[in-house]
Amino acid sequence: MALGKGRLEAFSDGVIAIIITIMVLELKVPHEESLEALKPLIPVFLSYLLSFVYVGIYWNNHHHTMQAVRSINGKILWANLHLLFWLSLIPFVTAWMGENHLTQWPVFFYGIVLIMNGIAYRILALSLIKHHGENSLIAQAFGNDFKGKISVALYAVAIICTWLNPTISVIIYVVVAGSWFIPDKRFERLLESE
Amino acid sequence: MALGKGRLEAFSDGVIAIIITIMVLELKVPHEESLEALKPLIPVFLSYLLSFVYVGIYWNNHHHTMQAVRSINGKILWANLHLLFWLSLIPFVTAWMGENHLTQWPVFFYGIVLIMNGIAYRILALSLIKHHGENSLIAQAFGNDFKGKISVALYAVAIICTWLNPTISVIIYVVVAGSWFIPDKRFERLLESE
Amino acid sequence: MALGKGRLEAFSDGVIAIIITIMVLELKVPHEESLEALKPLIPVFLSYLLSFVYVGIYWNNHHHTMQAVRSINGKILWANLHLLFWLSLIPFVTAWMGENHLTQWPVFFYGIVLIMNGIAYRILALSLIKHHGENSLIAQAFGNDFKGKISVALYAVAIICTWLNPTISVIIYVVVAGSWFIPDKRFERLLESE
Amino acid sequence: MALGKGRLEAFSDGVIAIIITIMVLELKVPHEESLEALKPLIPVFLSYLLSFVYVGIYWNNHHHTMQAVRSINGKILWANLHLLFWLSLIPFVTAWMGENHLTQWPVFFYGIVLIMNGIAYRILALSLIKHHGENSLIAQAFGNDFKGKISVALYAVAIICTWLNPTISVIIYVVVAGSWFIPDKRFERLLESE
Repeated sequence: MALGKGRLEAFSDGVIAIIITIMVLELKVPHEESLEALKPLIPVFLSYLLSFVYVGIYWNNHHHTMQAVRSINGKILWANLHLLFWLSLIPFVTAWMGENHLTQWPVFFYGIVLIMNGIAYRILALSLIKHHGENSLIAQAFGNDFKGKISVALYAVAIICTWLNPTISVIIYVVVAGSWFIPDKRFERLLESE
Repeated sequence: MALGKGRLEAFSDGVIAIIITIMVLELKVPHEESLEALKPLIPVFLSYLLSFVYVGIYWNNHHHTMQAVRSINGKILWANLHLLFWLSLIPFVTAWMGENHLTQWPVFFYGIVLIMNGIAYRILALSLIKHHGENSLIAQAFGNDFKGKISVALYAVAIICTWLNPTISVIIYVVVAGSWFIPDKRFERLLESE
Repeated sequence: MALGKGRLEAFSDGVIAIIITIMVLELKVPHEESLEALKPLIPVFLSYLLSFVYVGIYWNNHHHTMQAVRSINGKILWANLHLLFWLSLIPFVTAWMGENHLTQWPVFFYGIVLIMNGIAYRILALSLIKHHGENSLIAQAFGNDFKGKISVALYAVAIICTWLNPTISVIIYVVVAGSWFIPDKRFERLLESE
Repeated sequence: MALGKGRLEAFSDGVIAIIITIMVLELKVPHEESLEALKPLIPVFLSYLLSFVYVGIYWNNHHHTMQAVRSINGKILWANLHLLFWLSLIPFVTAWMGENHLTQWPVFFYGIVLIMNGIAYRILALSLIKHHGENSLIAQAFGNDFKGKISVALYAVAIICTWLNPTISVIIYVVVAGSWFIPDKRFERLLESE
């Protein structure tokens, strides 16, 4: 009897649900009732929107990936916790970026957290592939993971860009998010053909 | 093998559970021990009550709807996340309305968030119907969704009313909530007849 | 096909887990490092402990009760949400009582919230019994619910006592909690005999 | 019919997910955008990292242990809630230690909470073994629980060390965490051989 994946999914759902929801607490309620009182919240709101999409992408991909998983082991549990750790830092960098409108360091650290999440997801994928074998459904579904690698490369470019123009960096973050918005058809196709 | 609905339900339960609970954090604990210290909290409490009922209605309807769902796809995952995004803004507008006792802009944005939730639910319903087919249980259960459409229309009326008298707008929100309080018999009847 | 109880359990677990955990946020971290800095936190900590036990009791009883439930309906969903509403107010009254060391009004409202929770649980029980029938396992397990009724009566006594001596009220709360600490054997016995 | 373990797992997942995530809220967003603004957050971040690993270890061990559990009873529910209570205090001591960089009392109470968690886990294990019998899978998996006992002993040493040098205490906490980082092979081996 191998370790089941049920609780790993349930725990990840719980943590990701909390991460995606506590970000909204940074939208501090203004004490005034005027329309102008909302203006300073616009960049905070846009940061929230971007991060909501990113966390949503991770949950989506996690959901698709785990669908193809048959069993897990102790290493996979830690690879998953490692991913959750970097995801848990998204609310912090989101709030920092939201408060300081596209200045270098907040945008820089937002990129660092994104790149670490990308790497953590890759580590989780590799530990899943190793556990299931090179011919497994999950190994085929990831393939050479071109999309994952190009995303990490683009985050790196964006991080460097923060020295030149942080706005370009944020545009890159938005573009990468957009490219992942389309759910990972690889898994759906493979699962259907099964 | 199609994508299962289990994790979509679990994740939605998690997010909705957090949304419904963090609203209570706006009931800031008074530093004094007198009965008068609670007075300023009365509008905050009433806002909380209204929003608790609204979030409860969405959870209830989500529960009933998903009961008739057989499988999901990537588009449905995003339609669901889109609904959760608008639900996640309810605590913010609740707190703003609670602090500023029925003045125009807080009541206006409360209505905007309600109308966006109504639209997001409709989008989710349409993507579920498209996936299951026009003759599916879920398509029959929604029917022409008269109740959903009339609610969105009433939210629109309420939003316009904020220029005239925000109190009327809030009365409309309360009336619409009351009409949804009665659980969606359509699903129960159809599920029973199955 | 009747409505399943799975999501009602999952959603309740989520809400109760959040309630029991956010109470700890009232233990504000002292800025000083001395042992004395913890002293003002002692009543806050004791309030937290009492409320943790109360919320734990409700989760425990909910778990035991739902074990005997076969299916649910829309009314039961709302009876359950009603219970969750009153449970969600426990962190607020806990924090208020913790800050104001056993003075009348905080202790009074703590009792009000406890009595409303007791009544809400009774309403949930009655709606479950009505749905399952008078000869059902769940009806037998509740019996005449002597323990539930006596608790509500004691909360009422404690609420009145706040005018005389709030300390007595708190002692009553502790005693009632102690009496529920012992898990509800009725359900375990009935479930085993099944 | 015995009490199922499903909800105990789901509720524990919920509480642990919240505990591990709310700790990140102590990383207060700086109002400035400079790199220097992050400096005071470094000890807070390191405390967060250590506590994330500790909570992760408990979740991991809980997951492995519950995998071997067949059924539960009322006592086990309370032993589990008792563990969750001590886990819920980790965010508080983490934040206090993070703010006061390795001074005696924060490090002392961090150790107290760790030792109480170790003891609570032992009580849970004993109540599970008692329920399943001395020859059960779970009794074999725990064995004499050498690792658990040595950890509690080391926490005790670390607590005493806070009078001499709190830095040594923190090093002990890190070393013990490291020794648990490796997942509990006992359960995996036993479950596989089953």
